[in-house]
Amino acid sequence: VNDGTAAPEAADDAEPVIRLAHNLLRGEAEDLEDYLSLLHPAVVADAIEALPRENRQTIWAQASPSIRGELLLEVKRDVRAQLIEFASSEELLAAVIDLEPDEQADLAEDLPADILPRLLPRLDDANRDAFQLVRDYPHDSAGGLMDVDHISVRADLSIAAVLRYLRRIRMRRGSMPEHSDQLMVVDRDNRFVGTLKLSDLVSVDPMVTVEMLMDSEVQPVADSLEASAVARLFENRDLISAPVADHAGRLIGRITVDDVVDVIRGTADSRLLRGAGLPAEVDLFAPVQTSVKRRAGWLGVHLATAFLAAWVIWLFEATIEQIVALAVLMPVVASMAGVAGNQTLTLVTRGIALAQLDGINTWRLLMLELRIALWNGLLWAAVVTLAAALWYADLALGLTFGLALAISMLAAALTGTLVPVILSRLGVDPAVAGGVVLMGATDVVGFGSFLALAAWFLI
Amino acid sequence: VNDGTAAPEAADDAEPVIRLAHNLLRGEAEDLEDYLSLLHPAVVADAIEALPRENRQTIWAQASPSIRGELLLEVKRDVRAQLIEFASSEELLAAVIDLEPDEQADLAEDLPADILPRLLPRLDDANRDAFQLVRDYPHDSAGGLMDVDHISVRADLSIAAVLRYLRRIRMRRGSMPEHSDQLMVVDRDNRFVGTLKLSDLVSVDPMVTVEMLMDSEVQPVADSLEASAVARLFENRDLISAPVADHAGRLIGRITVDDVVDVIRGTADSRLLRGAGLPAEVDLFAPVQTSVKRRAGWLGVHLATAFLAAWVIWLFEATIEQIVALAVLMPVVASMAGVAGNQTLTLVTRGIALAQLDGINTWRLLMLELRIALWNGLLWAAVVTLAAALWYADLALGLTFGLALAISMLAAALTGTLVPVILSRLGVDPAVAGGVVLMGATDVVGFGSFLALAAWFLI
Repeated sequence: VNDGTAAPEAADDAEPVIRLAHNLLRGEAEDLEDYLSLLHPAVVADAIEALPRENRQTIWAQASPSIRGELLLEVKRDVRAQLIEFASSEELLAAVIDLEPDEQADLAEDLPADILPRLLPRLDDANRDAFQLVRDYPHDSAGGLMDVDHISVRADLSIAAVLRYLRRIRMRRGSMPEHSDQLMVVDRDNRFVGTLKLSDLVSVDPMVTVEMLMDSEVQPVADSLEASAVARLFENRDLISAPVADHAGRLIGRITVDDVVDVIRGTADSRLLRGAGLPAEVDLFAPVQTSVKRRAGWLGVHLATAFLAAWVIWLFEATIEQIVALAVLMPVVASMAGVAGNQTLTLVTRGIALAQLDGINTWRLLMLELRIALWNGLLWAAVVTLAAALWYADLALGLTFGLALAISMLAAALTGTLVPVILSRLGVDPAVAGGVVLMGATDVVGFGSFLALAAWFLI
Repeated sequence: VNDGTAAPEAADDAEPVIRLAHNLLRGEAEDLEDYLSLLHPAVVADAIEALPRENRQTIWAQASPSIRGELLLEVKRDVRAQLIEFASSEELLAAVIDLEPDEQADLAEDLPADILPRLLPRLDDANRDAFQLVRDYPHDSAGGLMDVDHISVRADLSIAAVLRYLRRIRMRRGSMPEHSDQLMVVDRDNRFVGTLKLSDLVSVDPMVTVEMLMDSEVQPVADSLEASAVARLFENRDLISAPVADHAGRLIGRITVDDVVDVIRGTADSRLLRGAGLPAEVDLFAPVQTSVKRRAGWLGVHLATAFLAAWVIWLFEATIEQIVALAVLMPVVASMAGVAGNQTLTLVTRGIALAQLDGINTWRLLMLELRIALWNGLLWAAVVTLAAALWYADLALGLTFGLALAISMLAAALTGTLVPVILSRLGVDPAVAGGVVLMGATDVVGFGSFLALAAWFLI
């Protein structure tokens, strides 16, 4: 019986990750095997991700075969590839053989070619069918997310009969499917007709029939629905599990919230990382060559926009030669426009990702963003006009600077709203490409407007 | 019986949001009341967030009192404040009276002062106690997240007795607590001793006792645990619900995964938004004055760093006067350093948020990032050297440009790694402040190194 003091690993998963990382990096790994066996596989996976390659190998070698399958599932794909490299074919086979078929399907494409032909014959027919079923769906569809292990019952059964059936299932398999909050109700053709909550099942008169108790309002998730739309359904409806049906309405599986949580976390994470030009599943300790190559492309794209801005400045070399203060002040205009535009871009990109923006309200939003840019543009134009006029004792220079800033901030609001809308119409993810395009545009407009106005008014 | 064709609103929640927004913006809102009653409150809340103020008021007015409480809970705080403005005291009281006590506690601080004194006397004793309990915890703690509605049983009961007890509860209250996947097992002092899965409960011999079936390995979540750590526990352990205990180990509530999903989404969202200097719970259609004020502060901070960079350039005015090409090329150096530094910053900030980085492995990561920056620095230095040498037919200028770029990219890797670590040690969220500090630093180093090298080598 628990004495009321929570063990540290239950109260917070952060601490053992750091402790494990410390001990390994300091070479204090004597009792590693024992310590690892005390930790949840997800915590070990976190520690693996927080450590360089050689320590990952040590952990893999010391991990018990029973958690190795979980480790492969939990780590990012880059890191998974490393673990698979460390492992012998026998170790890999032992690691994946006891996983669920849908988990095996998730790993399938990353495993060496010789594993599947050895794995499949060792699965029973039902599991092999389940493996094939899930494997044929894209990862980011409802079918790819689903779990085939579920219990379905017929609507005409009594609750007493359902309870007897469940006891038989448990007797046969020893445990119940994980994350069961409800049973699926199907007709004789295995078409989905409703759900039966376990909490209802345990609290009613056993003589009631399933049909009287079930929720027939629930609509199954289509197998082809995108993972992000599945996540929205779970979030909006506070679901724990949902039935998945094929095009004919036949129940083929069940999505559980733990997989949806991974989708939500993964989507948010990948948006953040790809927005900075990093791979969606980045490995902190990826080999240097890999990282250099991956980042080089992004830097190259930025270099192109930077040279475009440089070309705009070059057009006004003669102007700068006459008034060198322009060179001092021009980065301020471009940088403020970039920052203001990025605020608009972030809002609009997020609105698109949440499916909250479409033609007609985007127009409203654009008007709103332009008004915000106008007021903030005027405010900061006044500040920089004063600052530059005092610094260089030149009111005309100050006014030109302020006017350029106001114009650039308006242009930034326009670009920040339209760029993600246009990119997303073109099928390009605005979370990835929006920043580069915006920065190019605000640099060109920022430098260009200031230098052009200066060439016109000041010379 | 379902005919196998999923209704559109079940298959995807995005479509009705857009349709509702369109109809309202076009003034086609005749059957609004009927249409709203068909939608899930979360979908209506999404539509409210996607619309300007006047349409929000229309939806609120047409929404049935039974979903208004849900709407208040689902929308962002800014939007909630607007809805509360639209509503009379009577409407608000009717909207919140049937919510769960923990939901009422979440709304409490946003409701007008006259609502609570009218609400509390109308709650029964148990609900009033529950309200007070949750309200006393910070929003972002396990206590603030928890749900007080749960069922607990004693370990010495038989399963048959538990089933009888559950039937009595259902008879009395008409329904079971939502999201029940397990019952909580407590001792006579209400101290948590374990959990009993419903899927086990429905599938065993009723003569077994709770003690034989329960999972006594489960440790309760401490009421003071931070929401982000709670989310990590749920993610790592694939939990659906978890017991919450006070310092004495007494069971005081239960956290369910639907609230954790909101925490995960909210955290990711707020990181993205606050990184761009926007409020964590931004309202797309906030009034112009509000948005202007909120964004002005962020722009002001950036203006300060931009003027710092301008001051660095000003130090080299004489150099630029002699070689105006420096003014053309210098933004390239600063901008490339900013982009490269942002990649490192994003990685490190994320590692800190995931509790994967701490003293010893940060040092390893710094070495790795410096090596990546060295190689990418040399690569792009070669490219820009060549480009500038050809453009200006001046090899010395090209070499100075390339050297400055390489130096700035190394400095960016150093800054990108150390800034978030230092900010987080100082208790400042690196996701918010990291970008400004990094941009200031890369601008200063980018402009400064190029101009200083030019002053030294080229003049």
